[in-house]
Amino acid sequence: MANMHSRPVVTAFDWVPDFARGLVRDLRVRWAFEEIGLPYETELLNAMSPRSDEYLGWQPFDQVPAFADGDLRFFETGAILLYLGEQDERLLPKDPQTRWQAISWLFAALNSVEPAFNPIVSYDVFHADKSWTKEARVPAMDLAKRKLMRVSDALGDKEWLAGRFSIADIAMVTVLNNLRHTEMVQEWPKLAAYKLRGETRPAYRRALDAQLADFKEDPPMQMEGA
Amino acid sequence: MANMHSRPVVTAFDWVPDFARGLVRDLRVRWAFEEIGLPYETELLNAMSPRSDEYLGWQPFDQVPAFADGDLRFFETGAILLYLGEQDERLLPKDPQTRWQAISWLFAALNSVEPAFNPIVSYDVFHADKSWTKEARVPAMDLAKRKLMRVSDALGDKEWLAGRFSIADIAMVTVLNNLRHTEMVQEWPKLAAYKLRGETRPAYRRALDAQLADFKEDPPMQMEGA
Repeated sequence: MANMHSRPVVTAFDWVPDFARGLVRDLRVRWAFEEIGLPYETELLNAMSPRSDEYLGWQPFDQVPAFADGDLRFFETGAILLYLGEQDERLLPKDPQTRWQAISWLFAALNSVEPAFNPIVSYDVFHADKSWTKEARVPAMDLAKRKLMRVSDALGDKEWLAGRFSIADIAMVTVLNNLRHTEMVQEWPKLAAYKLRGETRPAYRRALDAQLADFKEDPPMQMEGA
Repeated sequence: MANMHSRPVVTAFDWVPDFARGLVRDLRVRWAFEEIGLPYETELLNAMSPRSDEYLGWQPFDQVPAFADGDLRFFETGAILLYLGEQDERLLPKDPQTRWQAISWLFAALNSVEPAFNPIVSYDVFHADKSWTKEARVPAMDLAKRKLMRVSDALGDKEWLAGRFSIADIAMVTVLNNLRHTEMVQEWPKLAAYKLRGETRPAYRRALDAQLADFKEDPPMQMEGA
């Protein structure tokens, strides 16, 4: 089905539990839109209903965000960030070395850093009541801390990962925020300052407000057969 | 330091333990080079020596592969695959919908699928002697199986994820191979056939042979102060 909207469309959930508010990944795409002042529309998914086969054809992992721009339809936050970056140099500089550094860091945030944080979130949020997480958390913390050290060292005294602000920072700042239930990022002053630089950008604030405004207060009723 | 070579350069290790042979990520980049017949050089890192600060400036996570092409220097397998894809339509079709589907699946392999396999590998390979892994493995297996189902369903009867062979398949086939110590992929006949299609491509075989040929038989001596 072609996108009937004149603006790009991003999918988001109409409700998530408190621990996920401000973390759901449509935030990353909203942030990119806000940085370049490009209007977009959200298509809100009922969080409690099974999604349609049509939606799975658009977003095969039954997640958000999926993305449409005219007839183009695809998925994955990293791909959407790259697409928006290709539209506007404020998100992805055209100078080849800076461009590929930014793309390297975009992939690094999503493949070298975020996967090392997933177990911490899983143990602390979803399995906090299980006794085995105490031991499982030890090597997971070691790995996560090593990643934080590497990012902090690479950032050094730079303001942004590729020198200039880019989609890499949208990815990395939001990836670091996955650890917001801990003090881990605060142990690295350069990273903590970097994360704060990102989260105090007006575009980030607008994106966060927009995500939060789209959530219903209470879990929506599950629709039979929807 | 500028790349003094006339060919693109990829870093790789000169030795890894048996369980990692055929999995180290320079394989993904070698495969892309072999698909388009583009000659490359490897810069082999002593696996047992600490890497130099200069190397960390190139590959901030102290991993392989790092990549150089002329004066351009960057890192992350996903970024290198994308770069090579932009050079050659056999790796990344130019038609916009196919291009962005391929890029979506490239990111999906690295951010939606591979992170769900990491805990399985960690528990089975690095912590197999710990009793807590028995319980930790249960939710990790559930998540990994859900991802396999999603990829299998999305693949359906297609030969390749984006319809045509692309960098997405290089990423996904090698990501699936992270589970080679299990029978998990074999439980999904379409995925098993897909993985076999990838691994029987002559370019994959050449890339694998090249990685294996670069490994010393025995662990190299650690170089004092290297």
